[in-house]
Amino acid sequence: MNAVGIVGVGLIGGSFGLALRKAGFTGSIVGVSSERSIAEAESCDAIDHGLSLEAAAASCDLLFLSQPIYGIIATLEKLGPLVRPGLLVTDAGSTKRVIVDAARRFLPPGSFLGGHPIAGKEVRGAAAGDGDLFRNRPWVLTEDLDHPVRHWIAAIGARELILDPDEHDRLLAWSSHLPQLASTALASVLSEQTGAVKAVAGSGLMDMTRLGMSSFDLWRDILGTNEVAVAAALDAYIAKLQYLRDDFGKEFRQAGEFAQSLKQRG
Amino acid sequence: MNAVGIVGVGLIGGSFGLALRKAGFTGSIVGVSSERSIAEAESCDAIDHGLSLEAAAASCDLLFLSQPIYGIIATLEKLGPLVRPGLLVTDAGSTKRVIVDAARRFLPPGSFLGGHPIAGKEVRGAAAGDGDLFRNRPWVLTEDLDHPVRHWIAAIGARELILDPDEHDRLLAWSSHLPQLASTALASVLSEQTGAVKAVAGSGLMDMTRLGMSSFDLWRDILGTNEVAVAAALDAYIAKLQYLRDDFGKEFRQAGEFAQSLKQRG
Repeated sequence: MNAVGIVGVGLIGGSFGLALRKAGFTGSIVGVSSERSIAEAESCDAIDHGLSLEAAAASCDLLFLSQPIYGIIATLEKLGPLVRPGLLVTDAGSTKRVIVDAARRFLPPGSFLGGHPIAGKEVRGAAAGDGDLFRNRPWVLTEDLDHPVRHWIAAIGARELILDPDEHDRLLAWSSHLPQLASTALASVLSEQTGAVKAVAGSGLMDMTRLGMSSFDLWRDILGTNEVAVAAALDAYIAKLQYLRDDFGKEFRQAGEFAQSLKQRG
Repeated sequence: MNAVGIVGVGLIGGSFGLALRKAGFTGSIVGVSSERSIAEAESCDAIDHGLSLEAAAASCDLLFLSQPIYGIIATLEKLGPLVRPGLLVTDAGSTKRVIVDAARRFLPPGSFLGGHPIAGKEVRGAAAGDGDLFRNRPWVLTEDLDHPVRHWIAAIGARELILDPDEHDRLLAWSSHLPQLASTALASVLSEQTGAVKAVAGSGLMDMTRLGMSSFDLWRDILGTNEVAVAAALDAYIAKLQYLRDDFGKEFRQAGEFAQSLKQRG
């Protein structure tokens, strides 16, 4: 792997560039993005320089698509006629079914490996990039494909995990999409209360509303491409909240065991 | 204020002792607690030594009741015949209406000032105590009573806030009790899912389930003494989750503004 192209150089794309450099990658790293994002990513050394998608597809042996989901799908369509032997396309999209299907439709067989590094921050842009962002975080791949990118995923400290796209989307509905909606709903309902709610806020409320700061630009696509699984998780959560009162003690114990085991897992 | 008695020397009581010392309090600090808690608090210098409630009431000019809510109420009843002029009783209970009513029933007028330092950790015990636990955190008082304890509340870095007991309980149902139940329900519903939910967990899920580790020993009393306000908050949250789907964009914007303003407040 000698030349990597990062398409969409925001927080995730910028962090991938920084992480590759930190792990000892000495090949070229180019960015395909808006002029402003390229300038931002160049100034923090996340990429060497910017290129057009056509030029990146011609010169790179890995393209990492780290755009919002529908941006990734649009890029896959454009890449259709540009993919040549020796180029692998991978991505960082937060849902996998629609992306893997789009890749199957637009790209030659064997040229795509779906991916999802499960890491993030509530801030955006390459300037907030962090070469350690993926350290000890899961990095889902949708296939057990033999390619050097997997060496680099391990080298930057991520924990590779192979999951079928449907299973990925179902699991993420629970582990990520539901927590996001629980936080959004909490912050939204609190914003409608009168009186000194903010003045009495403790650190627990800060934790519980932090995800509420996430950008809807990203979440529109995530929720729109995982509707069935998200609806099932949301319904189960609402039912749990409704019946919580029947046995608070049981629910606290069950929740405590789960939260504790998650914390120990780190 | 020359002698302080801390009744129930756990995380909050222990931290209060450590905070007083850190702020320059040179009087005596005694603890009224189980033998084990006294030993733990002594070994981390949160208190000087242990005393019986009778001896503490006779020798202290401030008693700080930092027990679970029903423990505080039981202590108030015991203190009835022990309170003498010059002794102020205050507390750290997480709900205020039932405690203020009990104090009115059991103690002489003017000898009680309801309090609630809004600070905590998911771990318990004086060994986890922290002299900076109350720094920049709200400390609710139920009356504008003139007493040196308010000087010390300011000296340990807390932000005093005077609230009527009912208004306190209503606000805390939103800012604390609802977030706790939202976290408990989330961790509980996730614990019932099959598959690699934990393996794909990100930092957002860790934040959202951290409160789920809270002890039910404390929460049984909190939920049991604020039932009406908690039920109203829970119902509003469930309704918000139900109607969230109608306009995700609006809810994300509204939530984002609230969460951002909370973060800026610190």
